[in-house]
Amino acid sequence: MFKSAELGHKIDKHVYDKEIPVLRKALLDAQFNLVNAANFQVIILVGGVAGAGRRETINLLNEWMDPRYIQTHAMGNPSDEELDRPMMWRFWRALPPKSRIGVFLGSWYTWPILNQVHGISTAAELLQSLERAKLLEQMLYSDGAVIIKLWLHLSKDKQEKRLNTLHKNPATRWRVTDRDFKQLSAYDKFQSVHENVIRQTNTIEAPWNIIEGADPYYRNLTVGRIILETLLNRLDQVNTTAHKINVAPRLPSVDNLHILKSLDLTKSIEKKKFKLELEKYQEKLNLLSRDPRFKEMSVVVVFEGNDAAGKGGSIRRITAALDARNYQVVPIAAPTEEERAQPYLWRFWRHIPRKRRVTIFDRSWYGRVLVERVEGYCSENDWLRAYNEINEFEAELIRHNILVVKFWLAISKEEQLHRFEDRQKTAYKSFKITDEDWRNREKWDEYEQAVCDMIDHTSTAASPWTLVEANDKNYARIKILKTLCSRIEDMLDSLPNHEKTANK
Amino acid sequence: MFKSAELGHKIDKHVYDKEIPVLRKALLDAQFNLVNAANFQVIILVGGVAGAGRRETINLLNEWMDPRYIQTHAMGNPSDEELDRPMMWRFWRALPPKSRIGVFLGSWYTWPILNQVHGISTAAELLQSLERAKLLEQMLYSDGAVIIKLWLHLSKDKQEKRLNTLHKNPATRWRVTDRDFKQLSAYDKFQSVHENVIRQTNTIEAPWNIIEGADPYYRNLTVGRIILETLLNRLDQVNTTAHKINVAPRLPSVDNLHILKSLDLTKSIEKKKFKLELEKYQEKLNLLSRDPRFKEMSVVVVFEGNDAAGKGGSIRRITAALDARNYQVVPIAAPTEEERAQPYLWRFWRHIPRKRRVTIFDRSWYGRVLVERVEGYCSENDWLRAYNEINEFEAELIRHNILVVKFWLAISKEEQLHRFEDRQKTAYKSFKITDEDWRNREKWDEYEQAVCDMIDHTSTAASPWTLVEANDKNYARIKILKTLCSRIEDMLDSLPNHEKTANK
Repeated sequence: MFKSAELGHKIDKHVYDKEIPVLRKALLDAQFNLVNAANFQVIILVGGVAGAGRRETINLLNEWMDPRYIQTHAMGNPSDEELDRPMMWRFWRALPPKSRIGVFLGSWYTWPILNQVHGISTAAELLQSLERAKLLEQMLYSDGAVIIKLWLHLSKDKQEKRLNTLHKNPATRWRVTDRDFKQLSAYDKFQSVHENVIRQTNTIEAPWNIIEGADPYYRNLTVGRIILETLLNRLDQVNTTAHKINVAPRLPSVDNLHILKSLDLTKSIEKKKFKLELEKYQEKLNLLSRDPRFKEMSVVVVFEGNDAAGKGGSIRRITAALDARNYQVVPIAAPTEEERAQPYLWRFWRHIPRKRRVTIFDRSWYGRVLVERVEGYCSENDWLRAYNEINEFEAELIRHNILVVKFWLAISKEEQLHRFEDRQKTAYKSFKITDEDWRNREKWDEYEQAVCDMIDHTSTAASPWTLVEANDKNYARIKILKTLCSRIEDMLDSLPNHEKTANK
Repeated sequence: MFKSAELGHKIDKHVYDKEIPVLRKALLDAQFNLVNAANFQVIILVGGVAGAGRRETINLLNEWMDPRYIQTHAMGNPSDEELDRPMMWRFWRALPPKSRIGVFLGSWYTWPILNQVHGISTAAELLQSLERAKLLEQMLYSDGAVIIKLWLHLSKDKQEKRLNTLHKNPATRWRVTDRDFKQLSAYDKFQSVHENVIRQTNTIEAPWNIIEGADPYYRNLTVGRIILETLLNRLDQVNTTAHKINVAPRLPSVDNLHILKSLDLTKSIEKKKFKLELEKYQEKLNLLSRDPRFKEMSVVVVFEGNDAAGKGGSIRRITAALDARNYQVVPIAAPTEEERAQPYLWRFWRHIPRKRRVTIFDRSWYGRVLVERVEGYCSENDWLRAYNEINEFEAELIRHNILVVKFWLAISKEEQLHRFEDRQKTAYKSFKITDEDWRNREKWDEYEQAVCDMIDHTSTAASPWTLVEANDKNYARIKILKTLCSRIEDMLDSLPNHEKTANK
């Protein structure tokens, strides 16, 4: 795999000096086209072995192109805010917006490689993390992004020579760390992991470029040409439609039965019992949120449902049981300008809570496969691929001990009409009803189909949907509180053991 | 000062039960007006002594109003990302956007009070931090925000009784911490600091409300009424113009002399000398950025200047000397939607670097007193108050060992014409010249006046402007590099002593 990058590639200074001005001008031109006319981002990952020129390469890119439109991120040790969230969070927050270039020194491959070399992860765990990296890249690619993965290689001899040279010169000694020399002594071990990682993640959407790092002229020219070619290629396609992704076909609907119709919407609870249960489950929820083990987890609650199904009221029954310091409610409306310049899930990643906190989404990432699908706000390809992307997103949260609890609040078409009319009559509630609500109502059947598809594709064992019969608001509220309590309880019990306090 | 809040205020349960539904409905109505129609944010600070009901109050506000449009922040210990930046950064990042309510448990008063009680700060330091808090509040107020400062008080006896009661009951024991009891034993000390702080910061823009915290009915009703009244009052003025701030009058210009005219724009450097000096100062800058003491500081560089004065080229001569991992260039264009929903300086605060990093602004917060003033993008009142706000902003950075270096690149009107025409002729540069540039040029004299005023008001000893004669690009680049090096050198020397390595 690294053979071609150990041949001793070299080019002469006079060739380099002739080629570079042309290359630089072309790169700058391409960058200005990107900045001024393109609606995608460029993500450049710079990896490789110590001494092969990774740092020089990121400096070079900033020198050759306009640094005002490049964001460089050295992904060193994560901050405490980053450690409190899933590993991918720090990459999402560092993503460049559309029309910008993001250069990453260190990437979503760095820790999987280190963990493997140091024996912290099993082979199966490595495979899983590479699978996740590929899914992330596939998502970015589908969204239009260009991903350029550079791997700077040195043979064992050359690496040793290079590190020694740097170390001997007082002016460059600072660039060589103990860690670099440790990497050298474990060269073979690193190489076998590197090869494995590159092989597994050398995809059509984001191929690796393995470049011999020994000769700076060769390395620079090669890196520059790879970037130029990839960028020009993509700029040519600016106006063509997005890449089509293969998605499993949906089951054709041949009878009239579906999961929403199977709900018994007449379910109700009498007022007295409601009051008792409300008190009981709010108290329980409060106690659970103060369980010492709760420090090790966090909770994301998703509310979706028909218009006027009672999401707001249900949310308030949850928050009333919690300490305001520890929760946040995020109402999802149209995306902002900054959110529109990013892949779809970015606007949800930014609200992912730190440990021991609860975030409640009033509408959510499921908008993509509901309103955006039905109203045609995104392409079919986009909402079709969203099912897998959402499952992967939630799996990433769950892996980090973030409990994901999803509620669909269902009411009947008649009940909705009743509530709409009631809202229109009451001055105080009239802000809650808009023309859009009436328009959505006309598409009742299409929404129903979208909901059924959503549940089929995204109700997983780790992150199931709870369908809530909501014609009776109080019944819905109790079912929601009860479900939330039991999911938190299960999660707490599944965590590694901790001391329990008197509260428990 | 606390006398009125030690009278034993109390109200009966039946009065409370009658009043509350009316109050809650009115609060919810006011909140919906805020969310749907108002263009300002509401900032509620909840302070006071332990046991007086601070936590209950923030929960109550979330219960009474719609929690989807409230952001609650418990300002506990700062994260490492926050510690790496000026103290005010964490408040700026937590500011609610316009039309939202932000509730803060703990505020910009918390640490000044604690530092004073624990003898960490002098009386003069306390006074300074209160001055800064007042300036922040004045800025928010001028921007249209509503600031409601609540102080929940208990007499010494009542506090002792309250803490003991909470501690005795197993269900509430968790709410009392050792810190609370420590506060009790230092009650008198705390009280005298509290009184001092409240007295100094009880301004017309943001007055304190001192509320007796012993009886929850009295406390809740009072808090609710204060918020309702303040909110209704402000909503009534939604369409009136912004508050007028008194600003010192500008000096009338009675002769033709000004600071820009005093520049000798014929200054130049010959090519050979330029190359030598460029190499010399880039090397010096590189060494300085790797000085071990550099870990304790960071740098903010501001580039302003006439259109086509050569900002981009100068920036690239700086970045070429730095490691791309440690700098970021931030080009300032029109604010995004999220930025427009915040006070003016918010969009710059979000880019303030962590320690040991360099952030270069290509145009900056000075846009307010330049283009926004001349083109009328903001009111006269807004740009007039900006001078003080900017000075205070930069002082805050400097206090945190962030070096602020500001360049004004000046070219003559003839040189600009020459460069504009050149840009238009060269296809490759033509993206750099727009109709707007030509329009700005027509207002040359107005811009010149704005620049002179800017320099007069914001060139301070700690954060001076460097005026750069830029008709000769190379001369400008050397002057900029030289200035930057010497400013960093001075800053390093002023830092507390550290070991120096072989590099130095």
